[in-house]
Amino acid sequence: MNSDVPQLSASVIAVAKRLFVDIEKASKDGLGVTRPSYGDGETRALEVIEGVAKQQGLQCQYDSGANLWISLPDSPAGPATVIGSHLDSVPQGGNFDGLAGVVAGLMVLMHFKTTGVVPTNPVKVLALRGEESAWFGKAYMGSLALTGQLSEVDLALKHRETAQTLEFAMKQLGVPIDVVKAGQPLVDLSEIGAYLELHIEQGPTMVARQWPVSPVTGIRGNVRHNHVVCQGETGHSGAVPRWLRKDAVLAVAELLSRLDEHWRVLQQMGMDLVMTCGIVSTNAQSHAVSVIPGEVDFSFEVRSQSEQTLEQFYQLMRNECEQIASSRGVTFNFDRKLFTKPAIMDPTWIVRLSQACQDFGIETENMPSGAGHDAAVFSNFGIPSGMLFIRNDHGSHNPHEAMEIDDFVLGVNVLQRALFN
Amino acid sequence: MNSDVPQLSASVIAVAKRLFVDIEKASKDGLGVTRPSYGDGETRALEVIEGVAKQQGLQCQYDSGANLWISLPDSPAGPATVIGSHLDSVPQGGNFDGLAGVVAGLMVLMHFKTTGVVPTNPVKVLALRGEESAWFGKAYMGSLALTGQLSEVDLALKHRETAQTLEFAMKQLGVPIDVVKAGQPLVDLSEIGAYLELHIEQGPTMVARQWPVSPVTGIRGNVRHNHVVCQGETGHSGAVPRWLRKDAVLAVAELLSRLDEHWRVLQQMGMDLVMTCGIVSTNAQSHAVSVIPGEVDFSFEVRSQSEQTLEQFYQLMRNECEQIASSRGVTFNFDRKLFTKPAIMDPTWIVRLSQACQDFGIETENMPSGAGHDAAVFSNFGIPSGMLFIRNDHGSHNPHEAMEIDDFVLGVNVLQRALFN
Repeated sequence: MNSDVPQLSASVIAVAKRLFVDIEKASKDGLGVTRPSYGDGETRALEVIEGVAKQQGLQCQYDSGANLWISLPDSPAGPATVIGSHLDSVPQGGNFDGLAGVVAGLMVLMHFKTTGVVPTNPVKVLALRGEESAWFGKAYMGSLALTGQLSEVDLALKHRETAQTLEFAMKQLGVPIDVVKAGQPLVDLSEIGAYLELHIEQGPTMVARQWPVSPVTGIRGNVRHNHVVCQGETGHSGAVPRWLRKDAVLAVAELLSRLDEHWRVLQQMGMDLVMTCGIVSTNAQSHAVSVIPGEVDFSFEVRSQSEQTLEQFYQLMRNECEQIASSRGVTFNFDRKLFTKPAIMDPTWIVRLSQACQDFGIETENMPSGAGHDAAVFSNFGIPSGMLFIRNDHGSHNPHEAMEIDDFVLGVNVLQRALFN
Repeated sequence: MNSDVPQLSASVIAVAKRLFVDIEKASKDGLGVTRPSYGDGETRALEVIEGVAKQQGLQCQYDSGANLWISLPDSPAGPATVIGSHLDSVPQGGNFDGLAGVVAGLMVLMHFKTTGVVPTNPVKVLALRGEESAWFGKAYMGSLALTGQLSEVDLALKHRETAQTLEFAMKQLGVPIDVVKAGQPLVDLSEIGAYLELHIEQGPTMVARQWPVSPVTGIRGNVRHNHVVCQGETGHSGAVPRWLRKDAVLAVAELLSRLDEHWRVLQQMGMDLVMTCGIVSTNAQSHAVSVIPGEVDFSFEVRSQSEQTLEQFYQLMRNECEQIASSRGVTFNFDRKLFTKPAIMDPTWIVRLSQACQDFGIETENMPSGAGHDAAVFSNFGIPSGMLFIRNDHGSHNPHEAMEIDDFVLGVNVLQRALFN
């Protein structure tokens, strides 16, 4: 640690506080904020950020993907450490999801500019568009387009309200669609030496553990089925004896109970794993209190930082289905298996961020991100990436998210100190 | 056994076959038959039965409840053994549910008349109306009215199609509603010494066991909740760790798996028990594949011949709910507990019917009725009652019920022989 690295000044903190208020005002919608991907609220947020950055004497530039880059005026050439996050939000969402990471980057640059103490590697801030899947049903549109990974199928996706395509929305902002379709990056990616993202936690772990700030070890991928149908046989609930029943509800209950127990044990053995069956329903056409349920439709999702764990747990689930199908005379029918690759944060950056946390007396443990972030796109693209979570109550994607400004300032101090480690 | 008791003659069997065909024609509706309670199809069936009975020289009389009584012309006074069942059906139901029992009684009387061999106690046939709950949402209307047990609340129930009340439908047939409302029986119940009912089985046990005919030991009662709500807490399926989850689906899965295992063991220990959770659903307003399910609504039903078993298993369920609520941080909220009393068949009649089965070389075991029957009303009213099931494929309440006429004839022979035991 470089113990000479100064901490954020009160004036920088005041600018940040003001930014949160101004951007919330600029995108207020009911209780929350609405900043549609490649839409008005998002653009207004970018403009407010740009205005403040210029006021502070920083350089601003939009790339062809319509994302904003901010740097020190005298920033040297060569691969930069990019501090980034997104400025869009879900409909009537919270103010800090995404925005906190961009404001953090801006604070770091302002801090460097005022103190004159700068790390060896150049540092840039990237304010991305289009991270939330709520608008076009696709996440990471901004970072995927930037890295040449947004497909034609994605571009044809339609906006949830206007029904206009993503291609249309991007074109309106001047994005060269032919370059996107050709799978070419929108910037010189060799200029991105590393990607760092500060983000509010979207779960309750840090509040419960009393961790204000925590480095993130990885971003969980997932395997999903939107629909698994367990088919049994309907029958009179009084007249069919146990040995002749093919009860789809009891079959699914057994499956979930077995998997829940496996999950408990595997997690105790150190595996990173969460399992969710978010939707379950008997057949509304044929179900009744006094009819043995002949059909259950349910969803299945498992998330892990480890691709191997994902695949192994998935196979375990399929094996359990086979056993239960055979013992209970039911069948399990699966729709398309959906897979999202996990992303591992760069070990060097995990150490740097952890070291910086320790410098501030913050205990850290392994903290995976359950939700997705642009950092996953950069990491899976081969760019060393790091993430820092800020404690946040009430989850995210709702107006009630609650990040304390002191936790945020501590996080930005950790972030800027890590740049010197 | 009285080995002199003759068996049914071919001519009696021919009359029965013809009756099934004629009544099916008279109430045909699509693939099945429709004989609404206190409605046209039911009345037509009664008239066909009455016509044949008179043709055969038997005496017919309607009671004030509009049910048909048939007896031998020279039947002595005093408590009779009444062979009865109902003539209504569910909408587009099967032809044999109910009708088989009435035809069986008629065959017995025809047989007695032609052979002159009669048992000591007088035997009468009772063709009841209004057993199916499909029309007014209430079962056993005919036998309850007959025994003075149909309430004003029941009389106000509305027909599923016409929306006219049960009171209106009964009035149309001349039933004295004031007597019914006063809770007075519609016949002199001291004239009913015993009640016997032959009925098709409505489950698959006898087909599976290859039993053509079986005495019934009792009619299962049940305890139900139409709605139990398990309340947990929604959350991000990736971001909330296992130890902070309140997953309503996994809670209900654990509950059902535990109860399923208890059921297995208790049944092995000799208890009569079936358990069904016919309806399960997560909250359609808030559920999603990637949201931890915060609410599950499910139904619960347990059936048994034993009132004690019903109550004990119900308490076991409530205890399991308490344990799971405490370990998983969820709550279980119950709507009104509904109870239907089980009915035990008279031990003497079980022995008589079993003995008659053995006389015909039929093995018998304990066979409970899972579905309800008028015999339950008579038995719970204190009238010694017996039931005989006939093997039947494809369940009931559908056009595909399939009773073999040979099994039926065997059943009627068992029934009439039991009257001599």
